[in-house]
Amino acid sequence: MHESLFDTIEQPTLLLDEETARQNIRRVIQAAGAIRLRPHFKTHQSAEIGTWFRDEGVTRITVSSVEMARYFAAHGWEDITIAFPANVRQAAAIAALAGTVQLGLLAESVETVRALARAGVRPAALWLKVDTGAHRTGLLWDDPTKAGRVAEAARAEGFPLRGLLAHAGNTYGAVGADEVCRRYRESVDRLDGLRRALDAAGYGPLQISVGDTPSASLCADLTPADELRPGNFVFYDAKQMQVGACGWQDVAVALACPVVALHPERGEVVLYGGAIHFSTDFFMEGEQRVYGRVCLPHGERWGAPVPGAALAALSQEHGILRFQAEAASALRALRPGDLVCVLPAHSCLTVTQMKYYRTLTGRRISTMNE
Amino acid sequence: MHESLFDTIEQPTLLLDEETARQNIRRVIQAAGAIRLRPHFKTHQSAEIGTWFRDEGVTRITVSSVEMARYFAAHGWEDITIAFPANVRQAAAIAALAGTVQLGLLAESVETVRALARAGVRPAALWLKVDTGAHRTGLLWDDPTKAGRVAEAARAEGFPLRGLLAHAGNTYGAVGADEVCRRYRESVDRLDGLRRALDAAGYGPLQISVGDTPSASLCADLTPADELRPGNFVFYDAKQMQVGACGWQDVAVALACPVVALHPERGEVVLYGGAIHFSTDFFMEGEQRVYGRVCLPHGERWGAPVPGAALAALSQEHGILRFQAEAASALRALRPGDLVCVLPAHSCLTVTQMKYYRTLTGRRISTMNE
Repeated sequence: MHESLFDTIEQPTLLLDEETARQNIRRVIQAAGAIRLRPHFKTHQSAEIGTWFRDEGVTRITVSSVEMARYFAAHGWEDITIAFPANVRQAAAIAALAGTVQLGLLAESVETVRALARAGVRPAALWLKVDTGAHRTGLLWDDPTKAGRVAEAARAEGFPLRGLLAHAGNTYGAVGADEVCRRYRESVDRLDGLRRALDAAGYGPLQISVGDTPSASLCADLTPADELRPGNFVFYDAKQMQVGACGWQDVAVALACPVVALHPERGEVVLYGGAIHFSTDFFMEGEQRVYGRVCLPHGERWGAPVPGAALAALSQEHGILRFQAEAASALRALRPGDLVCVLPAHSCLTVTQMKYYRTLTGRRISTMNE
Repeated sequence: MHESLFDTIEQPTLLLDEETARQNIRRVIQAAGAIRLRPHFKTHQSAEIGTWFRDEGVTRITVSSVEMARYFAAHGWEDITIAFPANVRQAAAIAALAGTVQLGLLAESVETVRALARAGVRPAALWLKVDTGAHRTGLLWDDPTKAGRVAEAARAEGFPLRGLLAHAGNTYGAVGADEVCRRYRESVDRLDGLRRALDAAGYGPLQISVGDTPSASLCADLTPADELRPGNFVFYDAKQMQVGACGWQDVAVALACPVVALHPERGEVVLYGGAIHFSTDFFMEGEQRVYGRVCLPHGERWGAPVPGAALAALSQEHGILRFQAEAASALRALRPGDLVCVLPAHSCLTVTQMKYYRTLTGRRISTMNE
């Protein structure tokens, strides 16, 4: 009899179901259809997992930092957008990169455009970062005058101006396809309005780049986007389950955590698995914080989430699994040393914390953070 | 003219003021007085910073994982308590460690005691993990019968039973010395009651080990503890400022973050510095989440926190600094590429994220996470 994967686990371990991840990649490529897909690699941060995308024909990627761009450039990716407002303190590093790959950068101020030009990053193309209502950052979609000033600076400095880029982050707050697609529609319509204004002012033709996992997973009509940049879909997570972007079977990562203590009298199990493993990202379910969904090992994978149970509190190394009466029969048999598999609230951050994966066949896959 | 520290910073950088950290170490040693100090090294996670404690005579330490115990054992520490419920899946690694250093372990169930014994960790000493009311984990202080069963198992298996150990984590929810010390008093009194019951039942003499930074910083009378295990005090952080355990001048770490975008019309500045740098730990101030206190560079350190400003939201790489009208004059002059120094909400987790420090003289100090 061969040794089970679960027998080999001694401490919190990030399990990765390769087949599910590859299916997720294929499904989103199909959903994108004729629209160019530039998946965000900040979710997996792994050269090897990058090759799973390449196997399906992906050639363009999105990253969130100069370091991440450098890492994937070193692994053969030649068309990279850094989807974060350009940090002018890194202008020299950005310029070096722009000399080796086709680089896309985000700008939202005249000042940043000029600083980038001074540093010699001109082979890079610029995108105007647009705020379509999420109010994290970007030029406001309804202020074409201000956006035009940045477009004018790009032209004056000799940058190719590629288009308008936004992150419709407000789809994460939605529940269900109708609400997700309504918010997506609002976001791309706003981008399209700004595009028309800038085209009319002579800065076109401009493209539209958007990207988030809920809309790429749920919306049949993704036009008039020219480019999609979702990232999370490769693994999904418990938050995407709440949004309705995926089912539990689509979640490709789970953190296997040893049970270290039991408090059945108050419906709690203490796991070895805390903030340094999961990150401290959570979502709300009624009045309760949810840091993850609770599954039990099942064969060589994990089973369905146990209804009425959640990872409900974290400290640096501890995770507190809290359960209602309905979950008691499923969890009653747990003993110290048993394993629980937690679907994390936010897989991108859990990957950042854990630094490497263990596939269901026991293979170790590295990330740029090791 | 020499190049300033701040001129050399390109991206989020964890600054460390060595002199302040050394002062913090000296102050807590003095506060502990005759009580044995076993500082928690999970805050700094650094062999070099460990030597700053050794310089002041510290010889015993606390850690939160087997890996951390191994790291510090490799750097010459010979008396180590792993203050986390023993994970029986790591019993072999624990046994190996117990053969090389004086090891303390936490147990809270008969089952765990027996599993540790089977794995041959017997040279290690055991502490009973006690819950004095914070309800994270541990044997309930008011159930001496149950605690006695675990003590009996320890005796039956031949373990030295060192005493009762608790983390009075509820002092973090307090504000001000009176409330912190009242909660500390309640916690140690409960431990003392359980100790007397177990001593009377023949399991003594048992020691009491407690430890948290607020009480070690604020309470004149720390008796009847035999051992103190605070950790955070070496750096402190914005949360400890809120509790009243320190002033801003005592905070020894700050994350220097480049400004990447400005939204003065809604009182916001976007920083390069997000969840992967700070962690996503926050505390509440009224209705607002606070991920950190906002300071500006001042000479070769950082100045006082700007009143009316806070790091108020984080995504993976972005930090949103939000400010009220009163802060506008201090922050109005910020431009893309300027630096802001943020005192993090929770320094332990920020250190875990950042992996190394830069001292105010520009020296690089490593941690176990690199």
